Amino acid sequence: MFTKLPKQRVFRDPLYGNIPVDYKIIWDLIDTKEVQRLRRIRQLSGVAMVFHTAEHSRFGHSLGVYHIANRMINEVLGLKDNLSQYEQLLFLISSLLHDVGHGPYSHAFESVFNVCHEQITCRMITSELTEINKVLSIEKGLAEDVSGIISHSGKFPLVESLISSQLDADRLDYLNRDAHFTGATYGFVDVDRLIRVMEIVDGKVVYRAAGVHAIENYLMSRYHMYWQVYYHPVARSYEIILEGIYRRIYDLIEEKIDFGYDVSELINVLETGDLTSYIELDDSYINGLVKSLTKCSDPILKDLSLSFMNRRLFKYIDTKFDEDKVSKEYQENDILCRYYYKVDKVSQVTYIREDDSLNVNNIYILLPNGSVQSLDQFSGIIYGLLESGKKQEKRIFYGKPGIFNV
Amino acid sequence: MFTKLPKQRVFRDPLYGNIPVDYKIIWDLIDTKEVQRLRRIRQLSGVAMVFHTAEHSRFGHSLGVYHIANRMINEVLGLKDNLSQYEQLLFLISSLLHDVGHGPYSHAFESVFNVCHEQITCRMITSELTEINKVLSIEKGLAEDVSGIISHSGKFPLVESLISSQLDADRLDYLNRDAHFTGATYGFVDVDRLIRVMEIVDGKVVYRAAGVHAIENYLMSRYHMYWQVYYHPVARSYEIILEGIYRRIYDLIEEKIDFGYDVSELINVLETGDLTSYIELDDSYINGLVKSLTKCSDPILKDLSLSFMNRRLFKYIDTKFDEDKVSKEYQENDILCRYYYKVDKVSQVTYIREDDSLNVNNIYILLPNGSVQSLDQFSGIIYGLLESGKKQEKRIFYGKPGIFNV
Amino acid sequence: MFTKLPKQRVFRDPLYGNIPVDYKIIWDLIDTKEVQRLRRIRQLSGVAMVFHTAEHSRFGHSLGVYHIANRMINEVLGLKDNLSQYEQLLFLISSLLHDVGHGPYSHAFESVFNVCHEQITCRMITSELTEINKVLSIEKGLAEDVSGIISHSGKFPLVESLISSQLDADRLDYLNRDAHFTGATYGFVDVDRLIRVMEIVDGKVVYRAAGVHAIENYLMSRYHMYWQVYYHPVARSYEIILEGIYRRIYDLIEEKIDFGYDVSELINVLETGDLTSYIELDDSYINGLVKSLTKCSDPILKDLSLSFMNRRLFKYIDTKFDEDKVSKEYQENDILCRYYYKVDKVSQVTYIREDDSLNVNNIYILLPNGSVQSLDQFSGIIYGLLESGKKQEKRIFYGKPGIFNV
Amino acid sequence: MFTKLPKQRVFRDPLYGNIPVDYKIIWDLIDTKEVQRLRRIRQLSGVAMVFHTAEHSRFGHSLGVYHIANRMINEVLGLKDNLSQYEQLLFLISSLLHDVGHGPYSHAFESVFNVCHEQITCRMITSELTEINKVLSIEKGLAEDVSGIISHSGKFPLVESLISSQLDADRLDYLNRDAHFTGATYGFVDVDRLIRVMEIVDGKVVYRAAGVHAIENYLMSRYHMYWQVYYHPVARSYEIILEGIYRRIYDLIEEKIDFGYDVSELINVLETGDLTSYIELDDSYINGLVKSLTKCSDPILKDLSLSFMNRRLFKYIDTKFDEDKVSKEYQENDILCRYYYKVDKVSQVTYIREDDSLNVNNIYILLPNGSVQSLDQFSGIIYGLLESGKKQEKRIFYGKPGIFNV
Repeated sequence: MFTKLPKQRVFRDPLYGNIPVDYKIIWDLIDTKEVQRLRRIRQLSGVAMVFHTAEHSRFGHSLGVYHIANRMINEVLGLKDNLSQYEQLLFLISSLLHDVGHGPYSHAFESVFNVCHEQITCRMITSELTEINKVLSIEKGLAEDVSGIISHSGKFPLVESLISSQLDADRLDYLNRDAHFTGATYGFVDVDRLIRVMEIVDGKVVYRAAGVHAIENYLMSRYHMYWQVYYHPVARSYEIILEGIYRRIYDLIEEKIDFGYDVSELINVLETGDLTSYIELDDSYINGLVKSLTKCSDPILKDLSLSFMNRRLFKYIDTKFDEDKVSKEYQENDILCRYYYKVDKVSQVTYIREDDSLNVNNIYILLPNGSVQSLDQFSGIIYGLLESGKKQEKRIFYGKPGIFNV
Repeated sequence: MFTKLPKQRVFRDPLYGNIPVDYKIIWDLIDTKEVQRLRRIRQLSGVAMVFHTAEHSRFGHSLGVYHIANRMINEVLGLKDNLSQYEQLLFLISSLLHDVGHGPYSHAFESVFNVCHEQITCRMITSELTEINKVLSIEKGLAEDVSGIISHSGKFPLVESLISSQLDADRLDYLNRDAHFTGATYGFVDVDRLIRVMEIVDGKVVYRAAGVHAIENYLMSRYHMYWQVYYHPVARSYEIILEGIYRRIYDLIEEKIDFGYDVSELINVLETGDLTSYIELDDSYINGLVKSLTKCSDPILKDLSLSFMNRRLFKYIDTKFDEDKVSKEYQENDILCRYYYKVDKVSQVTYIREDDSLNVNNIYILLPNGSVQSLDQFSGIIYGLLESGKKQEKRIFYGKPGIFNV
Repeated sequence: MFTKLPKQRVFRDPLYGNIPVDYKIIWDLIDTKEVQRLRRIRQLSGVAMVFHTAEHSRFGHSLGVYHIANRMINEVLGLKDNLSQYEQLLFLISSLLHDVGHGPYSHAFESVFNVCHEQITCRMITSELTEINKVLSIEKGLAEDVSGIISHSGKFPLVESLISSQLDADRLDYLNRDAHFTGATYGFVDVDRLIRVMEIVDGKVVYRAAGVHAIENYLMSRYHMYWQVYYHPVARSYEIILEGIYRRIYDLIEEKIDFGYDVSELINVLETGDLTSYIELDDSYINGLVKSLTKCSDPILKDLSLSFMNRRLFKYIDTKFDEDKVSKEYQENDILCRYYYKVDKVSQVTYIREDDSLNVNNIYILLPNGSVQSLDQFSGIIYGLLESGKKQEKRIFYGKPGIFNV
Repeated sequence: MFTKLPKQRVFRDPLYGNIPVDYKIIWDLIDTKEVQRLRRIRQLSGVAMVFHTAEHSRFGHSLGVYHIANRMINEVLGLKDNLSQYEQLLFLISSLLHDVGHGPYSHAFESVFNVCHEQITCRMITSELTEINKVLSIEKGLAEDVSGIISHSGKFPLVESLISSQLDADRLDYLNRDAHFTGATYGFVDVDRLIRVMEIVDGKVVYRAAGVHAIENYLMSRYHMYWQVYYHPVARSYEIILEGIYRRIYDLIEEKIDFGYDVSELINVLETGDLTSYIELDDSYINGLVKSLTKCSDPILKDLSLSFMNRRLFKYIDTKFDEDKVSKEYQENDILCRYYYKVDKVSQVTYIREDDSLNVNNIYILLPNGSVQSLDQFSGIIYGLLESGKKQEKRIFYGKPGIFNV
């Protein structure tokens, strides 16, 4: 499994210049159908409706996280000493695969169909039906270990925290990547500096005090990207219409109402959790489906699909500024309420302190004298934001059915 | 038609920061179904198979060309004086719409199905069936004038040359844009400087001598982007497989062989040139189609579609370096020759001097004494490249049928 | 005074591409001896000892602030309507000249010699001896009005607040500029967005609520640049040695002790406030002076100068982490205490709320309903940082005299 | 000499993020008086008069070349195998020190005073009087070997060609660096790609054919930076005035005419080549000297110095466009001719083919079949530019004596 490629291969990347690949197993994984599928799923779903260049896929992000992991192994003080060669490879593989289970327009999809991309990721890794699993089968236990890292089983806590915590390889890539592709410059994060001040002490990630400003800056960037980009009302509105479409499909399937379109793959996924069908679901599938549904026989599904296609966005009320003039009316009408109305609470916090003082999700600062403090103890900025750096918005989205009388 | 929006609107763009829109008619055009469709057609088709982040759409490029046109109007010396307000608006509109007729994976599509995106662009503008035409109908003759500019009718020669010549708004946007999204830095072009040294003299575009280095640099950038990005063998290979698929579909339709898949929209386009069907053709449509065809009943179409889906790329021989070991074999087999073999001649030239000394396609330099020279007369660099700066490569692409015996 | 240049001139700038100049009076001011002198005074003094590329001058910054002012006039909603043409020009001129009174290694210089660069700026503008004054004398009262803006006389409150408040043209330039030249990316600020959400309401600057994230981000950037760059201990140490040198010179002059070097220009400045002598003081003068002083007859001055030249930096104790082991010893020794010891308290605040609710120094947010709130009322982030976003460090710098026994 | 620092140290750099230093000897060399002096010598001399931000010093460039060398060692295929550990260190040291002998406003200085910075660099390395030599004396022969590389003695041909040839570590840094600091974007060169396609074959540097576009692009960038930046007439004019000043000083010293100013350091350098005096010469020294000379007793020196200080630039005739109206007049007047007149021939070539087919200065392309061609054989672009890609301009600069009648 540690076999190297005869010659290093690279991906050209606008963020990193080159992303080198040395291990054959990494190359083989990139080449699988399941990883390649990520090329067909946009990283930011509906955000492209407001940031028109947000058209980049999860594939580039997956390579990016792999690359950050690779840099961490080579650059973070003490990391190589704390990870066996096997664990290093586990780290690289898990970074590459961590998002492989994402569906198209993921959040809407998950919320309606009750699937969880993390679970699907794990199944894709461990199921014998996938190409990924075939590649990983080179080493007994490897697939299970990778899956365990992604599901936080706790067997490799250091690797887990490097991939998923409040400051991890995943976010270091996506903030910069989303900033580059949207033009929302807030997301730029000083990866060089953050990697440089990271250190492994007693098997845990800590950051030297000299780097606290880079961390503060990172936390603010993350916070701002959420509000400026990920939670942008136009993007949310678009995704909420899609939720309505998903919900209507779900209801029609449940009630076994034929609406004149073959959605067998969706049904397979919903009823049997069939992975092969799941893999067929990508942005093209959904876009094609919605386009077809504009001609379907169910008036609600047809109407919502037309809204989606023609960007007839739902309006919204920001309850902070505006009076709620619609909830009463919508809540009294079953159809309006189920498909054309959503109370969308979005919240983001600059920093979460987990009470458990050893929780790896916390960020720890290494003081010059060798002791370790939690970030909120050390940084006045972060301490001040523990309470006030939480922001929640309650927005009420509501659409007007277009082509029929409800 | 000169109505302004109540408030300027902007698109955030990673290249320009903001792209402002002031005229209502521009906003309405952006909002049409036909322009919005460009969001679903990638600018660089198969290039994403080698530059994995080349996933940006023609929509962003169209906005970009509009923006460059807008800057030219405001910044190029003498341009405002040489264009009436009507012509200025024509310039903006034509810039925005110049690519609206592009199909999915355009080059392969056009070469097999004998369509020309420029003609379709013009039809989309002048046909009464489109939303674009509805917006333009606000002013009699406007649609025809816009169409005329795109088809080089000669009625507005200055505007035509600003949109389409060897140095035009179109290229100024796409070189920088493709560089930003691929990470191939060669494409960066000094737009600020080029716009600054442009000037309108006797109704024609000229460049002040002080800017000749910016022009030389631009021509080299363009040349290098072609070889490094647009003609990259992996991208070409991918597109050539698609050509095989298109050709097979074409043949099957011609011979009226049912292959178990509804391609009525394609047939409509091919047989009647139906615009409404054409608009349905986008990347999702083609990707979905090819995915379906992997299960179709025609073995060749099935095989090619599998190659496309699984990136089983055609190999290639660069005849400059390698001996041609396959042409004889392939040319002797009808199926191999028609669907699995292509002699791909690509060529690019740094600068083309049109013999006609007044040809607007040439680049002209304004000397300090007021006289005008053609670029190749003035620049030793460009003169030297008139002959040697032409590069042609002949590559032979060939695939191995996978799942059946030919 | 509103005469335009026959042709627009531009400065090429790495931040803005081009900085255009249209008014003749601006060009003439740039050309004065006093503005040109800023080419010889580095923007960041001792910071270059730690960020080795921080070698850019105040000249570029002055052009940059002028450029931001120019953009504001053209882009900020309502600004043109609220400023007469005269006031617009005042704004441009004041922006260009706001730093013209800075001395070499300004902070050390001012703290020892009791000069204030703002006062000197005003004198340079109003004194008949300067070239600036000559240029401004084209219009009666102009010099006084410019000077009044810089000294906050209150006659043109809107212009004053645009040049100097918590979010002003000055800072919008220097944060980005210092980031570009040091490589400390924290400083990048979204100028496009900030200008876009600015608006003039009732003659006061407000920011539309949609832009609050850009403001939060700006305030954090400013905060981080202070801690990461401007207050970097190595830079401070360097400047503190220079303070020792200045203080020793001051003392020797006071006591009329000859130390074998002609510092008549310094004496002129100190005793008579002579502007002509002041203009001679630039970085070269100070560097040359210190170099000469390494050979002077006064042992303390010689020793400090050697420390400065050979980067024998003072050490420091960060009282937050380390025990203060030196204060007692140093405070007991007059020479050590006066020249080799400094308690350096640096503090920075993310946002200051002035209690006066109409204070222009506050940042105001324009709500969608037209009402105005102060930033800390509107933004939870900023509210949370009113207290905890103040950071103060007390560092004790101390040097070891090198070549003599104290 | 291979001792590592207890902990890696880094310089923050806007081009590379971090420049790491691992070897103690490198750190010690950076710390010497001679290398530190480079902080006080601007990289681009008079260019700052036209690109106002071109204020960066040779110090940053020296670190940059060291960094490129370090990257080459780690990244160029085959380089580590072809260089012993000693040679690797030699490469790093020579890269760092290659410019250490530069004087202030180097070209003017060298042309008048007949010094050669390369020779002085070598003397600084081998003379026992310097701190550099002290550091290098840790290993017998080291100083001589470093000096030999810089003077092209031929003992370490591979290292020599990596530091100084048509495509070397020196240029890879300065093109990008000068582009970053001037804003002249032409200079950006794809260092990542160039390093990636470099390879050592038979002990010589070659570039794989796939990278030929990066090389073509590099050569054009270099060519354009010369014409757009380094040879800009305003910069040249400024340097030519300085040449006049140097020449007048030289003449006055020769004729032993006292002009009321102590230039003993200059005299020491001229008469005895004294290194200690040479080190005192930096930009501050020259700027201070010229400022003083504005008050000197020699009218010519005074006048030229005033021109320099007040940017009363010499005018110029571009003989390509303009008639030469001054040469006759100036050549007839001794003083005008010697101090106020200069025929400035500047030329730059895109690529020089050395006839000797094994000359390391040539650029060689490695073909896929393993054979090697010279660049001009392989690239049509470069072949076409062998003749026409040479550009020469003859400009006649002439000044008008200001304050006296000649």
